[in-house]
Amino acid sequence: MSATRLRRQTRPTPSLRDFALAFDEIKGIVNAGPVKSLAFKRLAVLEQRFNLHVLLNGWRELSSQKSVPHRDFYNVRKVDTHVHHGVHHSACMNQKHLLRFIKSKLRKHGNEIVTNRDGHLLTLADVFKSLKLTAYDLSIDTLDMHAHDTFHRFDRFNLKYNPAGQSRLREIFLKTDNHVRGRYLAELTKEVINDLEASKYQLAEWRVSVYGRKRSEWAKLADWFYDNRLSSPNVRWMIQVPRLYAVYRASGLVETFDEVLANIFAPLFENTLDPSSNPKLHAFLEAIVGFDSVDDESKPDGMPLDPNRLVAPGDWNSTDEPAYGYWMYHLYANLRSLNGLRRARGLSTFEFRPHCGEAGDVDHLVAAFLLTTKINHGVQLRRSPALQYLYYLAQLGVAMSPLSNNRLFLDFAKSPFPKYFKRGLNISLSTDDPLMLHFTKDPLVEEYSVAAQVWKLSSTDICEIARTSVLQSGVEDRFKRHFLGDHYDAPGAAGNDIRMTNVPDIRVMYRHETLTNELAYVAKLSSRAVPPPPK
Amino acid sequence: MSATRLRRQTRPTPSLRDFALAFDEIKGIVNAGPVKSLAFKRLAVLEQRFNLHVLLNGWRELSSQKSVPHRDFYNVRKVDTHVHHGVHHSACMNQKHLLRFIKSKLRKHGNEIVTNRDGHLLTLADVFKSLKLTAYDLSIDTLDMHAHDTFHRFDRFNLKYNPAGQSRLREIFLKTDNHVRGRYLAELTKEVINDLEASKYQLAEWRVSVYGRKRSEWAKLADWFYDNRLSSPNVRWMIQVPRLYAVYRASGLVETFDEVLANIFAPLFENTLDPSSNPKLHAFLEAIVGFDSVDDESKPDGMPLDPNRLVAPGDWNSTDEPAYGYWMYHLYANLRSLNGLRRARGLSTFEFRPHCGEAGDVDHLVAAFLLTTKINHGVQLRRSPALQYLYYLAQLGVAMSPLSNNRLFLDFAKSPFPKYFKRGLNISLSTDDPLMLHFTKDPLVEEYSVAAQVWKLSSTDICEIARTSVLQSGVEDRFKRHFLGDHYDAPGAAGNDIRMTNVPDIRVMYRHETLTNELAYVAKLSSRAVPPPPK
Repeated sequence: MSATRLRRQTRPTPSLRDFALAFDEIKGIVNAGPVKSLAFKRLAVLEQRFNLHVLLNGWRELSSQKSVPHRDFYNVRKVDTHVHHGVHHSACMNQKHLLRFIKSKLRKHGNEIVTNRDGHLLTLADVFKSLKLTAYDLSIDTLDMHAHDTFHRFDRFNLKYNPAGQSRLREIFLKTDNHVRGRYLAELTKEVINDLEASKYQLAEWRVSVYGRKRSEWAKLADWFYDNRLSSPNVRWMIQVPRLYAVYRASGLVETFDEVLANIFAPLFENTLDPSSNPKLHAFLEAIVGFDSVDDESKPDGMPLDPNRLVAPGDWNSTDEPAYGYWMYHLYANLRSLNGLRRARGLSTFEFRPHCGEAGDVDHLVAAFLLTTKINHGVQLRRSPALQYLYYLAQLGVAMSPLSNNRLFLDFAKSPFPKYFKRGLNISLSTDDPLMLHFTKDPLVEEYSVAAQVWKLSSTDICEIARTSVLQSGVEDRFKRHFLGDHYDAPGAAGNDIRMTNVPDIRVMYRHETLTNELAYVAKLSSRAVPPPPK
Repeated sequence: MSATRLRRQTRPTPSLRDFALAFDEIKGIVNAGPVKSLAFKRLAVLEQRFNLHVLLNGWRELSSQKSVPHRDFYNVRKVDTHVHHGVHHSACMNQKHLLRFIKSKLRKHGNEIVTNRDGHLLTLADVFKSLKLTAYDLSIDTLDMHAHDTFHRFDRFNLKYNPAGQSRLREIFLKTDNHVRGRYLAELTKEVINDLEASKYQLAEWRVSVYGRKRSEWAKLADWFYDNRLSSPNVRWMIQVPRLYAVYRASGLVETFDEVLANIFAPLFENTLDPSSNPKLHAFLEAIVGFDSVDDESKPDGMPLDPNRLVAPGDWNSTDEPAYGYWMYHLYANLRSLNGLRRARGLSTFEFRPHCGEAGDVDHLVAAFLLTTKINHGVQLRRSPALQYLYYLAQLGVAMSPLSNNRLFLDFAKSPFPKYFKRGLNISLSTDDPLMLHFTKDPLVEEYSVAAQVWKLSSTDICEIARTSVLQSGVEDRFKRHFLGDHYDAPGAAGNDIRMTNVPDIRVMYRHETLTNELAYVAKLSSRAVPPPPK
């Protein structure tokens, strides 16, 4: 561990007031006219410089790819950096797969008891009878899980997640905490894991939800994970926290925001202090690489953070949802403490990689800039040149899902992906939600295909994006060495091994030199010393 | 057979002069200012009417799809109406498949003699040695068959078809007429056939080339087809004739254009008169559903047809390539005679479905309008509202390949597909060339996926396109009944069976009524009686 990193880790966690002050400061900076003009121009320069690079060196890049034995786009590692597993909304299997699974269960195991309705135990056959459906009847259309009519309707997108519009089927097939103790979802999960392992070169980071409604959520999830033996070298797990305090408060599940935080984090501190108190949870935590935070960002935000009138989580007992930034800060602060404790005990730590900038207020991206090093979506960066430029300079990782945006918030043709890519933002491609979005049996390659076709990405481009996806992912250091080469964490071309990544050195050099020059340019402007480029 | 159809069939074939006169007449009409204005406006009306239909009835369409048991987009029949098989340019397997096949041959059968170079017999291992390549070295990049750098460069697109830039590999793996007598290509073909048959719901119409260089081409192709047992219920074969007279003339293979025509058609007339003269060719002809005509349409056309100075094919001995229209007329006229003879003898007949309007002169579409009922591509119709309107009124079938256009002549974002679709042109989706274009193992679904995602096609839309693809295809009547329902050839909703097609009647009714009204509108304008809508 470098001295700088150690120093950073041992610095005390900034207070909510520190955060609120910094938030206001950055917000002021990125909205200042001269900053916006400068950022806009520098981004245009970066874009044109890339165009020039490709015009002059594109053939060199292709010819070095050709000279690498064996390696091509299909056998470079790619990580699906943002995909929901099946709890809360969305799911990792495609709809055809889910349909086949439901049909086969109904045919072969129709007499299994799957639910308890008002004290009556119902078999799967009973449930379908009550829905007036047979196995033969079921089709993708009756499942009705593909996203249509969902543009700017995140609420509908979430409803789609009920197969055949029936929350009963969702309960049975897509929940961990049901009468069959999540066995069906586990079996489905294992089938998708088998597909991933068979593909060899594809990995995925699956989100499962912890809501913070009850203290017992972690133990149940850990039981499900452990008892069903769901660990796989091709899968890393992420926890997604839906921002639903107001819902639990309204239904009387909690009294204050602090209770939600305690429900989420207390079991983790306890398990970190004494792993033997729940060995299954301990094992599950070792498979988790980070925390995500999810909800409809297009909903109007709550009260903005006023540094002089801050409410502590224990005092937040209003029926309003706290603002995005308030949620982010508290997840960040708790994770930071937790990570400190876990690091001290030699345990794994968690990244904080929230959904951010999918829709709604551009300020969300200010919060994430201060609190995280990676986000999901980030399409709203197109609305703020200064923030986009900051994200470039800091090389903040952005897992993008253009097909998902296309269904929810932003037409594919308007996606900022190709601009971000040319400008050198640290972006990867991810599927978000194969159940609702993709058509083929290979959703991640389909996501790459649509992007490559529509935006005419070269073989070098898509291999660079694949490499970025591995770097961005929470995959462990030893795997990254295996996938990208031993020196993957060295800056510039020294960190690239074309035999593993199929990315020409010339491309990596171009990116590194451009970033170094840009940082030097900014440093010169502000008459300070040149900071080292982030890795 | 209806009286009208019979009368049409027994009418004498129009002469080249008749064609040239009609060609000039139609050209004059579609370029007249008032006609262009009218067509432009009517197409806009058709488009807005469709938008209105979907806004008002979209939910009805979706709900009727949901109420159909079992059927969904995945299990409706779809025909890949335009895909090249592997001879001449392009190929029907994807590049990963070809790569795996070449690697496995080299590993397991490296000592098979595959070619004769200057009297020396070389094994596959020898060939790879001379190319300085091993099985391990080979990658998608070294194969270098994906289309990049090909925009407006049809010539390069064709060159790509040599694996690893090596015509020797093409010779060995992608030719029917080589030292292994096309066995490798046949084995590859059978693998793709197996995939299609396993998919059950997908069919393909594969193009193989007859060049017209020699009289023996047909017999060799028929031997290859028959000896390798390549017939399949999921595949129909088409003959593509490359327009390369000038090349053969320059190299002394032929003296006149008529010799090319004779090389193409004489063996067919002979076999039709006496099938026992070559039973394999007879069997092959029964598997062929139509003729295509291919070449780079963006090349400048030869001399236009002057009705007063027409040259007969036997007198065409110049080194110039005849114009597109001249080629089309002669293919049409010969096919018409051949079909007459075959029909009289109870044999199968051939459709004429040329490449047309992929690029180049809009006049090509005038020629096809006069001579054919189906074409491939047709993107140039966007340049001529009057021709586009005529194609709509006549419901001339257009097999479109937006991903192919995107690589060669027209950006995906500019594709006229969504406009044609809304306006009600008779269009299907096809892959053209999975070897160079597609990324996943399921190229046809990938083609649908990109279109559906980018253009936000509904489930009704894609099922309608799938139904159109079956109607457009050369698949036999009894199969169409099986795939689409017994009355598929009845007009309007009577011809639709949602249980088979998953297309709501309301959509089919909308299309039929709109067309009927439009034909009535045109008839009223020209004060003539209402013609019956074409089926």
